[in-house]
Amino acid sequence: MALALSTPTRNDDGIALAIPILKQRFGERCDTGQSMREQHGHTTTWIPNQAPDAVVFATSTQDVIDVVEICRTHQVPIVPFGTGTSLEGHVNAPFGGISVDMSRMNKILDVHAEDLTCTVEPGVTRKQLNEYLRDQGLMFPIDPGADASIGGMTATRASGTNAVRYGTMKDNVLSLDAVMPNGELIRTARRAKKTSAGYDLTRLLVGSEGTLGLITGITLKLHGIPEAISAAVCPFPHVEAACNADIATIKCGMPVARIELCDALQMKAINEYSKLTYPEQPTLFLEFHGTETGVKEQTDLVGAISEEHGGGPFIFSTKPEERTKLWQARHDVYWAVLALRPGASGIATDVCVPISRLAECVEETRADLERLDLIAPIVGHVGDGNFHASVLITDDPDEHRRAGVFLERLAERALAMDGTCTGEHGIGQGKKKYLRAEVGGAVDIMQAIKSAIDPDNLFNPGKIFA
Amino acid sequence: MALALSTPTRNDDGIALAIPILKQRFGERCDTGQSMREQHGHTTTWIPNQAPDAVVFATSTQDVIDVVEICRTHQVPIVPFGTGTSLEGHVNAPFGGISVDMSRMNKILDVHAEDLTCTVEPGVTRKQLNEYLRDQGLMFPIDPGADASIGGMTATRASGTNAVRYGTMKDNVLSLDAVMPNGELIRTARRAKKTSAGYDLTRLLVGSEGTLGLITGITLKLHGIPEAISAAVCPFPHVEAACNADIATIKCGMPVARIELCDALQMKAINEYSKLTYPEQPTLFLEFHGTETGVKEQTDLVGAISEEHGGGPFIFSTKPEERTKLWQARHDVYWAVLALRPGASGIATDVCVPISRLAECVEETRADLERLDLIAPIVGHVGDGNFHASVLITDDPDEHRRAGVFLERLAERALAMDGTCTGEHGIGQGKKKYLRAEVGGAVDIMQAIKSAIDPDNLFNPGKIFA
Repeated sequence: MALALSTPTRNDDGIALAIPILKQRFGERCDTGQSMREQHGHTTTWIPNQAPDAVVFATSTQDVIDVVEICRTHQVPIVPFGTGTSLEGHVNAPFGGISVDMSRMNKILDVHAEDLTCTVEPGVTRKQLNEYLRDQGLMFPIDPGADASIGGMTATRASGTNAVRYGTMKDNVLSLDAVMPNGELIRTARRAKKTSAGYDLTRLLVGSEGTLGLITGITLKLHGIPEAISAAVCPFPHVEAACNADIATIKCGMPVARIELCDALQMKAINEYSKLTYPEQPTLFLEFHGTETGVKEQTDLVGAISEEHGGGPFIFSTKPEERTKLWQARHDVYWAVLALRPGASGIATDVCVPISRLAECVEETRADLERLDLIAPIVGHVGDGNFHASVLITDDPDEHRRAGVFLERLAERALAMDGTCTGEHGIGQGKKKYLRAEVGGAVDIMQAIKSAIDPDNLFNPGKIFA
Repeated sequence: MALALSTPTRNDDGIALAIPILKQRFGERCDTGQSMREQHGHTTTWIPNQAPDAVVFATSTQDVIDVVEICRTHQVPIVPFGTGTSLEGHVNAPFGGISVDMSRMNKILDVHAEDLTCTVEPGVTRKQLNEYLRDQGLMFPIDPGADASIGGMTATRASGTNAVRYGTMKDNVLSLDAVMPNGELIRTARRAKKTSAGYDLTRLLVGSEGTLGLITGITLKLHGIPEAISAAVCPFPHVEAACNADIATIKCGMPVARIELCDALQMKAINEYSKLTYPEQPTLFLEFHGTETGVKEQTDLVGAISEEHGGGPFIFSTKPEERTKLWQARHDVYWAVLALRPGASGIATDVCVPISRLAECVEETRADLERLDLIAPIVGHVGDGNFHASVLITDDPDEHRRAGVFLERLAERALAMDGTCTGEHGIGQGKKKYLRAEVGGAVDIMQAIKSAIDPDNLFNPGKIFA
């Protein structure tokens, strides 16, 4: 059972045979231009670009079935591509092969408002979906920041700021259509809200990073747009106080919709970037969803909790413009981080620990960054115990070395606290080396599943497994 | 990949060799007495008892590892046993073998109140756990009715009355320890609230019915005991009206904790059994959890929705004794059903459909029962679109035939409405014949996974797959 996955090498002959067939089948939708290929290698992180040999723009499930059939015949790797916003090299093609771009499969196939479900093609983005749903008073709450595709979010088990209330992709996908390595299109489940019918293939495919199947349709759970929303901001004297207020909020069963931490350096970056005057202290950004009474009750209670833990002033609003203003800083995080050190690139990190260990983990991480003389603002989805330190590095080799030490120690720290090296970004290429340390012999079971479903290792090879 | 599972036959020689070794290892904890064996075959349904050859009472994970090792060596089937309350023949031993009784592995290993998690052995029952948690203001909400073991509830992906608010076992298990068919003990995940680290083996094992691994430890999500609880009861003129009130309640995003339907026959059975005087009409039983203000708001809103849909009187209370009285009828359902036809046995059914199809599905099912002259009260977890018609049958062969026709048509009806043949009971032996109709080629993927993880088909053989 612990069979090693066959280590693929570049199959130049197969690729040379497959591409003309793909060109014949897809015409201009099979693109081998260098710039297009590089756009489909990985671009949003420090992981080097490994471009595919061709990009096929799928417009239908049948297109995907055909690509799989051609690639199976010639033993050519297939790498699915959504919007390219993944952070761990998921869309790289280390052994070459075909990038299947799903962005043109962007139809919303149905919305069942009474059942609070909808079915979409994988290239639909979360913003596109929410614009479509708004008039029906519905929303799809999962928000990883980027305007990612629903297919990509499914494949990486994404979550983001709203997960503390609405869960992650695993909690919001009801059923999947996927083309499997055997060439068959399957549907993992019916549209019922729950089922006990056999193995949970839906959850097996969610987070499988394109290594088990190519997702061609996603049936999602939807939520009503809340009657009332309030937003709040509160600075704290130190990270521990902010984390303790966070713990107390979660523990009292508050259905808080968002609870985000920015550390002092992150707040400084935001002030500089957005010309704002926030206190440069660890700050919680909160959002509450519910009825008017419910939202008021939640806001008051969390205001009191925050003050009890030394935070303040606790500023909140239910008015849309003021809410936007209060959260402006949080929304600008990405750009503010990059502006903090012009020319540097950012390495995203993504540990997640039990919330009781969060303050300790953030404090130790902060101290380690100082010890290593690295610049890395921290922002966290702290209701879930998940935070990102974005390490800003230049070309300096010693800085690279120190960043490497930091990354190793960060993963070790999270594991020592019974946490994970990745809360929401996935393993991809970047975190392969931590997976066995994290789940031990469970990796052998994962590999046995991979080998059983994709014996030729053609579906996104070189990801997840070391 | 679509390899058929090897069809096991009884391995008499292996069993004869394994039992003395098990007796030597476990002494009196390996029991081959007929009555003990029969108690561990399936008893709570119409499916005939298929007793194992021996019952081993495990008291530690090492015990489970040892049983697996001995059974692997001699190619003997292993059937896990919790409290024996499953409804689809899960604990039967159609090819003989060893029943591993987990009931003595009933320690609560830790509770992390700040993280809202706990870790338990598989034999801990849900009532035992909730009694233990109460003093800390915490609860584990999943309530399938029976005082089932947490291990069994995990293995069957159980849910029940609270699922509409708190989800099913898949939503409330953070991590599992399991002894796999290769003899290795794995832990599927760390204790972080979310993770994107590799395949979701936690969710793969939840609902795998003992066919992929023997669960020896479960880390669960916990919830705070709500500050306030209110209960309500409301009769409706017909099922459609009750279902429409249910749909409207769910659609407006109400975080209702329980919403249960009893049909007119069920209400009659309850009145007779419990000497009560409920209107013998389709009736909704509701429960609301939250702050005092929140609960009041929910109760008022659902009261108004119910009246709008022709229901009433809507009676509610927040006082513990009155709440218990209001819900008495719902709690007595199991016994009331059996008393409706003394001497008859009940066949549990378990379809679940998208909520928009629920009224139609219940009405058609009711009509089919009348057409076939069968007695079957209906009770439903209607917030999830899930309902149970309990068919009461005697020894009359023609009644058996008609019951068979009913079961087939019920499954077909649910599938035609994009629903499932089993919302929460699992496939086991009883629903194997419906699985391919429900998920098509996905069954081949499930079988490939089973063959990869349990190539000798020793873990609960004869379940799930036809």
